[in-house]
Amino acid sequence: MTFNEEALRHLAIPTLNQPARQAAQERLDSLVKPPGSLGRLEDIALQLAAIRGEICYSLGKRCVIIMAADNGVVAEGVSSAPQYITATQTLNFARGITGVAVLAKAFNTDLFIYDVGINGTIDHSGIYNRKIAFGTGNIAQEPAMTRQEALAALGVGVEAVEVAWQQGYELIGVGEMGIGNTTTAAAVLAALTGAAVEEVTGLGAGLSDEGYRRKQGVIAQALALHQPRCQDPLEVLAKLGGFDLAAMVGVFLGGASRGLPVVIDGFISMVAALVAVRLHPQSWGYLFPSHASSEPGVKVAAAALGLEPYLPLGMRLGEGSGCPLMFNLMDAACVVIREMATFAEADIGDEYMTKIKMGSVFQRKES
Amino acid sequence: MTFNEEALRHLAIPTLNQPARQAAQERLDSLVKPPGSLGRLEDIALQLAAIRGEICYSLGKRCVIIMAADNGVVAEGVSSAPQYITATQTLNFARGITGVAVLAKAFNTDLFIYDVGINGTIDHSGIYNRKIAFGTGNIAQEPAMTRQEALAALGVGVEAVEVAWQQGYELIGVGEMGIGNTTTAAAVLAALTGAAVEEVTGLGAGLSDEGYRRKQGVIAQALALHQPRCQDPLEVLAKLGGFDLAAMVGVFLGGASRGLPVVIDGFISMVAALVAVRLHPQSWGYLFPSHASSEPGVKVAAAALGLEPYLPLGMRLGEGSGCPLMFNLMDAACVVIREMATFAEADIGDEYMTKIKMGSVFQRKES
Repeated sequence: MTFNEEALRHLAIPTLNQPARQAAQERLDSLVKPPGSLGRLEDIALQLAAIRGEICYSLGKRCVIIMAADNGVVAEGVSSAPQYITATQTLNFARGITGVAVLAKAFNTDLFIYDVGINGTIDHSGIYNRKIAFGTGNIAQEPAMTRQEALAALGVGVEAVEVAWQQGYELIGVGEMGIGNTTTAAAVLAALTGAAVEEVTGLGAGLSDEGYRRKQGVIAQALALHQPRCQDPLEVLAKLGGFDLAAMVGVFLGGASRGLPVVIDGFISMVAALVAVRLHPQSWGYLFPSHASSEPGVKVAAAALGLEPYLPLGMRLGEGSGCPLMFNLMDAACVVIREMATFAEADIGDEYMTKIKMGSVFQRKES
Repeated sequence: MTFNEEALRHLAIPTLNQPARQAAQERLDSLVKPPGSLGRLEDIALQLAAIRGEICYSLGKRCVIIMAADNGVVAEGVSSAPQYITATQTLNFARGITGVAVLAKAFNTDLFIYDVGINGTIDHSGIYNRKIAFGTGNIAQEPAMTRQEALAALGVGVEAVEVAWQQGYELIGVGEMGIGNTTTAAAVLAALTGAAVEEVTGLGAGLSDEGYRRKQGVIAQALALHQPRCQDPLEVLAKLGGFDLAAMVGVFLGGASRGLPVVIDGFISMVAALVAVRLHPQSWGYLFPSHASSEPGVKVAAAALGLEPYLPLGMRLGEGSGCPLMFNLMDAACVVIREMATFAEADIGDEYMTKIKMGSVFQRKES
């Protein structure tokens, strides 16, 4: 499958169904509770209805699609972890022993693991090999990718959703593995929003003070070197991003184009969602932010997207680890709209009312 | 079972096990992730270990204990719902059709429903009749309860935990039903913390502006009339609280005394937890706040408790509806500490390393 500028431009995203959203609102308001009293669970139910085109009473098979790739910028010493961790953790996803893997297993979520550009060759049946190259360019010195490479990575994401969709998955989470990708994500975010480098730069997996200053310097250097036009999100992505980020953008766009709800994980995932929305604003309605990581850039990205994460748990593991937790909340929203009685159904009627002998209402009986 | 001043004073709460907490910390730090990167999930795992006396790898049977009672203060017109809703919704818990009931069922949680003072007689096998009286006194005019009544209600809560504990429940949530109980809870909270009436008063299930002003006036009037000593939490509870609140305090204390983690639901539940902690500060370590309701008093109560809710979902249904959602997060914390590999286990070793052929690290291969 080739994915190119034209395929990207012509990606069709279904319009959200406002009558279905309205029907969900009416059903929520008919349920035996004060209107709106289930708070953001109700927001989830409304958004799912708009996506599905009918009230969503349950979500079926769900998966997290993990995009793994290496980022050349690690040569600048911006990461506390060595580059081979990208490869070994990707293998460990397939072995089922990482954070996202154990949470996914516990909450009935499958993983799809893609190598879109790891700087190494992994031979494991649980990992899809869609490698574009052995890591990207070092953004402090050169573009991360050519425009064609970025499009190819994006196409891997679109294809990954297609594979999941054909297998009947109804709910998608977006995860990643890529040492150095908080640096590339921060650079992309700064370029797209105009935010200051210090607003978007965090400690990643655990940088020293010196490493943190170096990381800020590298991001500033990359921004100065490439000066991508923020009006051209693909250019920003190609010059400052990575294969991991680009493929995640593809998952967001592919999910929206297939009419599937897509869950955002942490910082990297949030930046990928922002790129997706800049490319295709209609994809916004398909996004569900999960947790707020402790990376400072999350706030900037969430504000740019106009999204408020549901689970401010201070997680900063990445991998897609917040997605299974969010899937649980989405299940809860479906449970509420599916199983709560309406006021009419809950009216206890004669059968039950005879069982309740009311005391002297408003008048206390002496005990 | 009689519960009296002395029984309350002598309630023994096990000391938290710091070595177990430390062991959990060491295991978390050994897992294949940056230290602390699972954020508040790690906090949950640490607290559970301190409670259990060993690393908590799973939580077994769980329940929400719902305390239902009527509050005489509804005579002042402080509630948007009529008093009989307390009785009918309590019946609807037993019928399995309310918010907490459907969420509980979906997430493997059982309900224990107690009538501690509904102003009516309900005949249903699913509801424990532990009625103290047919509603409390109107706090704007008279004490809600005598000190003995408050102790009796508290004893029902302690007994309810005992019943659950004997049936093997390992995790307890605290819910309620009682029209008028945001008013009594606000009064108790103001008395205990010195917070201003407007800081603790919210719209309840949906008051009008006029109703809201009336509610503030009633709370101020009750505080001025009773002037309970904040050094005597039982006096505050008896004069301003309700059977529902008092019984919930008993669940928090009973849970702590049996060494069980206890989950706080919304505003009423949070105020009950605060009373419990004022009576027995050691109970604090057993508390898990779930969601932050949109009642403004939640902030005051949470600050007084030094707790930050895990799920700020803007819910304001009460019933205990936030507890099953929190149970999911607690399960997630157990999954992580039980199933994630340690760095040693995740070391891919020779078997796997041969499967990864690393590219030229830090040096991009031309694509």
